[in-house]
Amino acid sequence: MPHDAALAELATFLGDRLVRSKAERDQHGRNEAWFPDTPPDAVAYPETTEEVARIVATCARHNCPVTAWGTGTSLEGHALAIRGGISLDLMRMNRVLQVRAEDMQAVVQPGLTREALNTELRATGLMFSVDPGADASLGGMAATRASGTTAVRYGTMRDNVMALEVVLADGRIIRTGSGARKSSAGYDLTGLFVGSEGTLGIITELTLKLHGQPEAISAAVCAFEDFEAAVQTVITTIQMGIPMARIEFLDETAAAVFNAANGTSLPEKPHLMVEFHGSETSAAEDAKRFGEVVAEMGGAHFDWATTTEDRNRLWKMRHGAYPACLAFRPGSLGLVTDICVPISRLAEAVRETRADIAASGLTGPILGHVGDGNFHAVLLIERGNEAELKTAKALARKMAERALSLGGTITGEHGIGFGKKDLMAMEHGEAWEVMARIKRALDPDGILNPGKVVEVNQ
Amino acid sequence: MPHDAALAELATFLGDRLVRSKAERDQHGRNEAWFPDTPPDAVAYPETTEEVARIVATCARHNCPVTAWGTGTSLEGHALAIRGGISLDLMRMNRVLQVRAEDMQAVVQPGLTREALNTELRATGLMFSVDPGADASLGGMAATRASGTTAVRYGTMRDNVMALEVVLADGRIIRTGSGARKSSAGYDLTGLFVGSEGTLGIITELTLKLHGQPEAISAAVCAFEDFEAAVQTVITTIQMGIPMARIEFLDETAAAVFNAANGTSLPEKPHLMVEFHGSETSAAEDAKRFGEVVAEMGGAHFDWATTTEDRNRLWKMRHGAYPACLAFRPGSLGLVTDICVPISRLAEAVRETRADIAASGLTGPILGHVGDGNFHAVLLIERGNEAELKTAKALARKMAERALSLGGTITGEHGIGFGKKDLMAMEHGEAWEVMARIKRALDPDGILNPGKVVEVNQ
Repeated sequence: MPHDAALAELATFLGDRLVRSKAERDQHGRNEAWFPDTPPDAVAYPETTEEVARIVATCARHNCPVTAWGTGTSLEGHALAIRGGISLDLMRMNRVLQVRAEDMQAVVQPGLTREALNTELRATGLMFSVDPGADASLGGMAATRASGTTAVRYGTMRDNVMALEVVLADGRIIRTGSGARKSSAGYDLTGLFVGSEGTLGIITELTLKLHGQPEAISAAVCAFEDFEAAVQTVITTIQMGIPMARIEFLDETAAAVFNAANGTSLPEKPHLMVEFHGSETSAAEDAKRFGEVVAEMGGAHFDWATTTEDRNRLWKMRHGAYPACLAFRPGSLGLVTDICVPISRLAEAVRETRADIAASGLTGPILGHVGDGNFHAVLLIERGNEAELKTAKALARKMAERALSLGGTITGEHGIGFGKKDLMAMEHGEAWEVMARIKRALDPDGILNPGKVVEVNQ
Repeated sequence: MPHDAALAELATFLGDRLVRSKAERDQHGRNEAWFPDTPPDAVAYPETTEEVARIVATCARHNCPVTAWGTGTSLEGHALAIRGGISLDLMRMNRVLQVRAEDMQAVVQPGLTREALNTELRATGLMFSVDPGADASLGGMAATRASGTTAVRYGTMRDNVMALEVVLADGRIIRTGSGARKSSAGYDLTGLFVGSEGTLGIITELTLKLHGQPEAISAAVCAFEDFEAAVQTVITTIQMGIPMARIEFLDETAAAVFNAANGTSLPEKPHLMVEFHGSETSAAEDAKRFGEVVAEMGGAHFDWATTTEDRNRLWKMRHGAYPACLAFRPGSLGLVTDICVPISRLAEAVRETRADIAASGLTGPILGHVGDGNFHAVLLIERGNEAELKTAKALARKMAERALSLGGTITGEHGIGFGKKDLMAMEHGEAWEVMARIKRALDPDGILNPGKVVEVNQ
């Protein structure tokens, strides 16, 4: 067995928290996308930062790869131990360490999920805003630079992580950032670790920015005759500066998916799902102005979700989109694209993506956090059908190329993992090599999540 | 003369844009703070990115240091060529390359100043928000991760730089970021170069985020009986979530400084200067809520600056604070502290700072962007008085220690340069060594602004 020496040494201090059973290995070898199962050699369950440090130091001595694991909900194979070694399952480090209500900050461990944090915060009048749909771990969200439905208003993980504790590739523990709202004290290491997908260090603690729970919330869903009207509504709304808390697009296929999964009867047309946060006055004013844009664009079926229950139902439906898409074609796997373009190019990007999907013969509902210019096509591939997978990959590559030609990015929020690694040179050119230099500087032996994000042997 | 070979080669393609005259060298050896004059060996005036690349490549071959120069308004010696070599004056690269109004973005060269950009933008309904007081170059502001009066609402340079073009230490040109509002495509190099003070690369182009010019603006100044009431007003306002566009503190000494410099008759008491941006309705609502807080805290002399002229006068006074402080004690130099603490610790930080200044015998007006928890003491030192300089440095160090003990940072917005380098280990511990590793990875020969931010020979 590879890495036997490392695993034997890890077992000396982890005991039964180093697990080599097939069941556990298989569970940490699965993914929610189209990647083949890739079990690690063992799963480690640390309970403290010091244990993480000792695990990493041990693995470093034995040249044994360490790949962090949270809820396993990433979509580009980030958490798969593709070079073997251990899966570092951080889900037992799931405590809220401190809520500093007066500074609107929370200090948490990486295995805490965003919903668990918000449950803890309920009575404080504060909330954590970043909402990628899945109830992901906050460490994983930071590592992936996740965002989601509310980024249009509250920002992504880049904007909401203030400070980190990180275990480096040699087992040293460092702290980045502080509790101050801003700093210019040297290189922004917090920003560097956020989005580094566990390739530069293991996040063991996060200081997160919180926001006040809005005094008033109103949400609505409305249908449009065609996607151009829906997308133009988004562009106009953003350009008018109406402060949307959420503005989500679904195409007619996505509406059909939602109906099938939820027993709803949305017209099979493009929709926008929106939410406004503010004072009673401002939320009403924003909703009114948005309503005027919708009316001008010919939108209809403008249904307000006025009660908390209605609103929760609405967003539960949106958050369940991915499994609903998979269920729409039983036995399928999903290849989810994630391009993000400047808002002015959004209509063009969606139009051409629709045409490509139609030409490919695949089913591919489109949903998106369109207030950021970000949208996904969920390409449904029959499990085991290599021809469809090949078609989907070609389509995804074409979308990525288009995003770049429109001044955008190949991934708005899902990250690189190894699923999009072959597109990195296209987006970054020589800057990708700079990323590799940083990787080599921080992890010279390449033990942290090897094979992801960068190509170190260029 | 050192670096003769490098300078000779640079002259072959720069011609009279490589200047070795004493006058030009002296001009690029000055600083606005207490550092001794440090002229470079020559000044280079590139006009294109390609020229910057060629200059850096040439200097790299000859191991000749390259220190970027903008408006020379940094306060920690950032732009001084302390190891000799050339001062790279980027002020001829001062064009607005593109305004993408529909995406609220502008693409600019690094030598453009923030005021020049806003003049260009006037007719578009858009504005660039970051406002450090000085009419600094945008490249310099990015390199320093500057912020200023409006960061409380619109963020710092970290939040407002979307993409960069950068010349690396070997002369290669890379691009970071994109026109998309968010991305998770690998390490955040944009964020890494912002705040790197010219030590990792030379910024040759910036894509900046713009904001809509507010429909309504209202500003006011109000006096308080004691600083505690003023600071508590800030804390309460921020915690209530009232969206301030600006909230600036001055202590009684600063009020006296303003009166002396501007012929005003502010009561010699602590003041807050505030501004609200929004719709007519929301700005009025915000101002009203703020007024209630002020009244509760016993604030008085609440003067509204209702006309544009009044408002401009108000902020011109604030922006002129630094020269006004120096003029308050003729023949003095300034050592400006810049701590930033969590908002809940602000009163404590200001209280203890005041006590320290009083005990030191120095004059040190306090002003601050207190909505961020950031404030400055301008310690006035008699030119050539070593004892006073020593006292001021000890005081600054004590403040930095206090900031850290309160969970804050040694510098909110002025950066490190070499003035604060000896405090970096105290703030960052081993993370400072990680910064050095990044420096060595990107600039192995140490030619970019050597001697600043990091210690590469640790």
